[in-house]
Amino acid sequence: MINVLKIQNPYNRRKRKQAMIGDKMKTLVIVAHPDYHDSGTQGFLKRATEGLEEITWHYLPEQTEFNVAAEQQLLIEHDRIIFQFPMYWYSAPATLKKWEDEVLTRAFTFANEKGILKGKELGIVTTLGYPAKDFQAGATEGFSISEILVPYRALAHRAGMIFMTPLVVDQFDYMTPDQQTKLLIDYQQYLTAAFSFSFSVRQDWIIKQLKKMMNSNNQAQLQLVIDQLEQNKIDLNDLKDQIKMIRQAEEG
Amino acid sequence: MINVLKIQNPYNRRKRKQAMIGDKMKTLVIVAHPDYHDSGTQGFLKRATEGLEEITWHYLPEQTEFNVAAEQQLLIEHDRIIFQFPMYWYSAPATLKKWEDEVLTRAFTFANEKGILKGKELGIVTTLGYPAKDFQAGATEGFSISEILVPYRALAHRAGMIFMTPLVVDQFDYMTPDQQTKLLIDYQQYLTAAFSFSFSVRQDWIIKQLKKMMNSNNQAQLQLVIDQLEQNKIDLNDLKDQIKMIRQAEEG
Repeated sequence: MINVLKIQNPYNRRKRKQAMIGDKMKTLVIVAHPDYHDSGTQGFLKRATEGLEEITWHYLPEQTEFNVAAEQQLLIEHDRIIFQFPMYWYSAPATLKKWEDEVLTRAFTFANEKGILKGKELGIVTTLGYPAKDFQAGATEGFSISEILVPYRALAHRAGMIFMTPLVVDQFDYMTPDQQTKLLIDYQQYLTAAFSFSFSVRQDWIIKQLKKMMNSNNQAQLQLVIDQLEQNKIDLNDLKDQIKMIRQAEEG
Repeated sequence: MINVLKIQNPYNRRKRKQAMIGDKMKTLVIVAHPDYHDSGTQGFLKRATEGLEEITWHYLPEQTEFNVAAEQQLLIEHDRIIFQFPMYWYSAPATLKKWEDEVLTRAFTFANEKGILKGKELGIVTTLGYPAKDFQAGATEGFSISEILVPYRALAHRAGMIFMTPLVVDQFDYMTPDQQTKLLIDYQQYLTAAFSFSFSVRQDWIIKQLKKMMNSNNQAQLQLVIDQLEQNKIDLNDLKDQIKMIRQAEEG
């Protein structure tokens, strides 16, 4: 078993790296929501994906029979898998659990068997009806989001997937337009930017998106923003180099 | 809200205490298992409840529409609620999640709203296909059962229920007859003995069960076992008193 892991891992890593570098990473957004068609949040998030490339939006209808082979094929074809759902009793609604129970068969999923999902990323986009700050020891909900999501973290662990920092959307209905804009960008990054979401990765992503927008309108203004962002990035890298040199000097 | 809690809590505590003392605690076993009728473990556990009083065995059929009012009425009528299921992807199968999503409405459940479940006990009986020791940091499963069950612990927290130490049944198919007998007793205690399961509570329970059996057969032999157990208990209490006196003397 050790040997099998040794042989397979470099392949998966290489494949994943190529997907990132080649900018062809494909993201599958699996959406479960019992009131999907009336959900303002899901509508907003769906609109946020319009125009983004390499995104497959995959809504799971209620009380459906899943075609296991077709669902597994979808998983095979994507690099980043997102479970997107409103938090119901501290996990996804039953439909996503049904999907997990039926589609994620043991041989397909376990990293030490076929391990088809190995090296892929698992992200969670969850919406809360209550403030995120309620989710901690001593607060109304008593447990943190990290604790509540353990079953998904354990799934990622068993499948050899990379578990992404979850994107928590709390109280969407109370968001100001500015907060919604921030959510839109955070969400688009969550689906398409290289993980982990360091400052530098996020900035690269914004520059790239802005460059795309150049072709449409407001070109002069956009160019100013891009120039500023790129200058920031050069400054940041200079700063990093300086810190590195200081540290090296300190360590003698 | 503080006042409401203050008024309601003593009532719930009193009610619960009466149920325990009066030996009329009622237990609801909610069973979810996609292959229920072929499950040797569930069959074994069901047989273990035969002859026990005040137990309601409540199997949730797959793909059923729940009658929310009837399900809530069942919860109202019982003091100890057990979720019993095989662990599928680190939580209950989808049917139990569907039941939670539909039956546990907010006003009914939240401790700070109607709080109908407040003061009741929530127990988990979960069966594992893998050894329990795999469930820890650094082992195959990577997370402990306590971590994996956070969504149920959070539910108990939100509903003001007492979360019982889970009863984990691992690899039932490999159990020896002796191990099965031990499981049978552990399970019967889990459903009917006063929580928490201290040594003294367990012994009381065994004495009571044996006394019931007296009426049937092997009376002389049973009487010997009962005498021995009761003597053990007296010895244990003597020992406890002695330790207490030593400690008090030490503290001067």
